[in-house]
Amino acid sequence: MYSLFSAMTLILAAFATIPAAADYDDASPSAPTIDQDREVLFQVSTIDALLLAVYDGILPVGELKERGDFGIGTFDRLEGEMVVVDGVCLQVKVDGNAYVVPDEVTTPFATVTFFEPDQTVLVEEANFSELKEILEGNFPSKNVFYAIRIGGTFPYVKTRSVPAQVKPYPLLANVTANQTVFEFENASGTVVGFWSPEFVDGINVPGYHLHFITDDRKAGGHILDLALDGAEVELDLTPNIFMALPTAGDFFSVDLTGDLTLDLEKVEK
Amino acid sequence: MYSLFSAMTLILAAFATIPAAADYDDASPSAPTIDQDREVLFQVSTIDALLLAVYDGILPVGELKERGDFGIGTFDRLEGEMVVVDGVCLQVKVDGNAYVVPDEVTTPFATVTFFEPDQTVLVEEANFSELKEILEGNFPSKNVFYAIRIGGTFPYVKTRSVPAQVKPYPLLANVTANQTVFEFENASGTVVGFWSPEFVDGINVPGYHLHFITDDRKAGGHILDLALDGAEVELDLTPNIFMALPTAGDFFSVDLTGDLTLDLEKVEK
Repeated sequence: MYSLFSAMTLILAAFATIPAAADYDDASPSAPTIDQDREVLFQVSTIDALLLAVYDGILPVGELKERGDFGIGTFDRLEGEMVVVDGVCLQVKVDGNAYVVPDEVTTPFATVTFFEPDQTVLVEEANFSELKEILEGNFPSKNVFYAIRIGGTFPYVKTRSVPAQVKPYPLLANVTANQTVFEFENASGTVVGFWSPEFVDGINVPGYHLHFITDDRKAGGHILDLALDGAEVELDLTPNIFMALPTAGDFFSVDLTGDLTLDLEKVEK
Repeated sequence: MYSLFSAMTLILAAFATIPAAADYDDASPSAPTIDQDREVLFQVSTIDALLLAVYDGILPVGELKERGDFGIGTFDRLEGEMVVVDGVCLQVKVDGNAYVVPDEVTTPFATVTFFEPDQTVLVEEANFSELKEILEGNFPSKNVFYAIRIGGTFPYVKTRSVPAQVKPYPLLANVTANQTVFEFENASGTVVGFWSPEFVDGINVPGYHLHFITDDRKAGGHILDLALDGAEVELDLTPNIFMALPTAGDFFSVDLTGDLTLDLEKVEK
């Protein structure tokens, strides 16, 4: 299923054959429009609140799934890594196993959307950095969001998960300093996540934020590194974001005015 | 209609009599929740795109009014200051007059919500800085949005408006350097606007962003300064934001990665 041509050739070929699904190709630059009812990235809380240990779950997974069938996040008390794929919510716990999540479990931070790909990019051999660069080179704009789905067999994937925390909650950077790391070789699975513009700094993760789930839905986690050997990358350009903030709890009093860029860098590694 | 007691006394009294409308008082800190269907601040484009001269209108006012009956913004080509109040959209042009806006006129940047006050603060004599401080002292959290409505007779209001621009559009800071200023004394009218958390930096205006419209709906503008002599300030705590980004036009290519804090300060003065 993967092509024998060079990555560059394949990307150009993909561009030439974008189907009608590419909404953003319909509008000419002289007639800008907005499409507020479709293609909404739905987000619970802010990344800075999570960095500052606001881990109490605030939205049941059952309600989260009403806002999207695809996405990532974490769970009440920071217990594990969330992957929502094809409408199923999975929890990769620190024991390395993925579990289907009951609707009543809550999340303190998550991002979901309804995944409807606008563009497909075929990528041959690539490491994580190369993949990121290739995809960004294909974005029609760096001022909107992209949901990213990559299915295939990956030569290498390195992920992490974290255990449930107890109060008083430690900062996220301190939790991930003791994260549990998993390594996969020749793993068939799906990469699920988002690319967000720089201007969401403090609100969500600027750039890439990707999680992984194996095809048997038994393992995965927050991606720290990966290698590709030919894969079809689906991009869903998403020009709208709905951010739902907690109306009580630790979120109300946490000081979100600081610059947590360095904390975020530590956490993402 | 204004009280004779001190501002402090009145604020406390207002707190003691918050009616059932105060959603955020219902949830205890130990049971944080989110309320994603009500109380949504709807925003078109980003403030940094406006600072960088993305002035082409992208959403018709008729559609904007479906997302809120209250708010502020500007119009296609930056032509004047927008005030949406009680479901009516008004345009304060640089000639000093306010006009009712036809539904087909478009906006490149606007913020609206359905105004449902949660809290009333009675403020006696106060200048603009004092007003800002008093209100912030009453916010239950600085991590959510507040729609702010102040009705009354104002001893002093200083506003501005700007004229329609022609391409190639100049930066907003250069436009406002030549803004037209209006001064009102003992003006009966309504202050319409928002307070936004620091973390929306780059996306919307952190802190206060207020416009003014007179009771006869004939004049107003973007508020540069004001004085109060007793007024009822209505606050609508808004924990959700929906940001709709353009799917084409100048927004797609503008570089939004820079820090425009200084530009924003110039523009708000």
